Amino acid sequence: MNGGDGPHSYLNNSNLQREATDTCRTMIEEAIAQKLDVKCFSSNPLRLVDLGCSVGPNTFIAMQHIVEAVERKYLEQGLKSQMPEFQVFFNDLAANDFNTLFASLPTERRYFACGVPGSFHGRLFPESSIHFMFSSHALHWLSKVPEELLHKNSPAWNRGRIHYTSAPDAVSHAYAAQFDHDMEIFLNARAKELMVGGIIVIVMAALPDGIPASQIPSGVMFDLLGASLMDMAKAGLINEAQVDSFNLPVYAAPLEQMTDLVKRNGCFTIERMELVYRESKLVVPVSGKECGMHVRAGMEGIIAKHFGSGIIDELFDRFSNKSVEFSHQLESSQREGAQLFAALRRK
Amino acid sequence: MNGGDGPHSYLNNSNLQREATDTCRTMIEEAIAQKLDVKCFSSNPLRLVDLGCSVGPNTFIAMQHIVEAVERKYLEQGLKSQMPEFQVFFNDLAANDFNTLFASLPTERRYFACGVPGSFHGRLFPESSIHFMFSSHALHWLSKVPEELLHKNSPAWNRGRIHYTSAPDAVSHAYAAQFDHDMEIFLNARAKELMVGGIIVIVMAALPDGIPASQIPSGVMFDLLGASLMDMAKAGLINEAQVDSFNLPVYAAPLEQMTDLVKRNGCFTIERMELVYRESKLVVPVSGKECGMHVRAGMEGIIAKHFGSGIIDELFDRFSNKSVEFSHQLESSQREGAQLFAALRRK
Repeated sequence: MNGGDGPHSYLNNSNLQREATDTCRTMIEEAIAQKLDVKCFSSNPLRLVDLGCSVGPNTFIAMQHIVEAVERKYLEQGLKSQMPEFQVFFNDLAANDFNTLFASLPTERRYFACGVPGSFHGRLFPESSIHFMFSSHALHWLSKVPEELLHKNSPAWNRGRIHYTSAPDAVSHAYAAQFDHDMEIFLNARAKELMVGGIIVIVMAALPDGIPASQIPSGVMFDLLGASLMDMAKAGLINEAQVDSFNLPVYAAPLEQMTDLVKRNGCFTIERMELVYRESKLVVPVSGKECGMHVRAGMEGIIAKHFGSGIIDELFDRFSNKSVEFSHQLESSQREGAQLFAALRRK
Repeated sequence: MNGGDGPHSYLNNSNLQREATDTCRTMIEEAIAQKLDVKCFSSNPLRLVDLGCSVGPNTFIAMQHIVEAVERKYLEQGLKSQMPEFQVFFNDLAANDFNTLFASLPTERRYFACGVPGSFHGRLFPESSIHFMFSSHALHWLSKVPEELLHKNSPAWNRGRIHYTSAPDAVSHAYAAQFDHDMEIFLNARAKELMVGGIIVIVMAALPDGIPASQIPSGVMFDLLGASLMDMAKAGLINEAQVDSFNLPVYAAPLEQMTDLVKRNGCFTIERMELVYRESKLVVPVSGKECGMHVRAGMEGIIAKHFGSGIIDELFDRFSNKSVEFSHQLESSQREGAQLFAALRRK
């Protein structure tokens, strides 16, 4: 994610993620109210985690809601005297802009704050030390581009594209297999870290049943971004081979795949797992510029690393123009968009 | 502290602190071997803190030694099967460069790492959640410049100086009182956070008995820095009133003051408290340039905030020249230099 607080920062271009989190707020509160067994957590303090927090402000809003929901639960159960202190761990990759995150921590927070650098595709916390975990719009990031996409003679060599949308089956199978592999590691790590009875709530990109990946919002955007790169290759601004070897390591899972993965892992009971569709008020045409800013905030780093930072402004100008040109596709994709909500409890 | 890894960064100008920590390494290991009662810490994991960690690498070296010393203790006591996982909390002000700290975390570390932004002049952790705390070369920072120094008509108005060295008694009394106040808050916070039996080891600047503050290394340096600023004022480069109203919020405590404060606070037993003199090998002439770089890495931020960053290069050029001119004073101050080592146990 782009750090800092400039015009292309994640901080100033994360409204879409915020709206999505708002939609799920009630469901998160319900998960805490109905599923979190605070009576079994005798020991002070209560430790909460945001996995893939980026730089705020969405993470602060979410963690504030979660703390309040837990506090309400203690009060409702007549456990006011046992009200715990809260410790909140903000996790993201070590390259995340923690300086910006820490500088913008709410001063009135009712918790002790920590930053935890590292990939959630691995262990981050001591055993049985966490009571509640949350991850919003982060688990669509794969740990890496699937190996099969890196070899020119592989059936999954993704020529002229940067994602599995609109690609041959071998490409999307490689992505799905990488997600399977990553989620197994993710779930095993969380199973170690969560206390028995602890809850993890996941909000993530999802692929609704029967909808092609190329018709959901991220699919349309990645296709347009890939097409913009190919236009630049044709104009001689970059090398076509560079596009062939570049792939975005992000994946939107179908509900069924995610359900199977959790069941196969075996460490969690599924307390809730469903697709959440955007509320009608959110189905508004997203402008080309807004769309460009949104994708740039999330993807600039990974693109600049492969192509060099010199192409970024040109690329996103072209991408914004394409987003205007294909605004009807973007708009109709908004109606197909969904996110997966999961509340899992550590057995 | 100056962040990043440039020529003026703390990262590249913290050798003096490192040497000092090396001197105390054996004493830290002894404190863990003799005073840390691991049998009373049944619950996994073991939580360690560095208060005022800055950006490394000194903090990584210190925490690595501490983890190894605790591991040795478990092995020696035949508690191998109960060997805990370690969680290390790196604390410093929110303005510290945590991005640099996180980017340089040792990859082979045997602990889970967290960054904790905030002042140690206040609470940072949940109650009874920490087993071992460490603070090296940080507690000489006061929470603020004493109030009395801010009023033109106060007897503690520090005209033409930037520190209590070589100043009237009213000034040094105000500094001492501020240190008393800060340490009371510091000790109360740590008493809450440490588990009963937990240890805090403090290594900090100290004023040996019978030596004037102006003759220890920091005293000589701050006097030279103040004189450099006054030279600039006389040359019309800054305003003399700006120098009058600027004071460095740092203080080197005498052993007796620190002992009294811990006793008066009452939450800790003093397991060890003594002055440590530099080993002879370290009493080498410190070059003017090295001295300038050292002070600049620690003080640039606070000076730039008051005088503007435009004066920094000129100031430290003048300071380096002065350090060469007064090298005999700097050299003899090295012989007077001492640090305070304290190992306190939570009652």
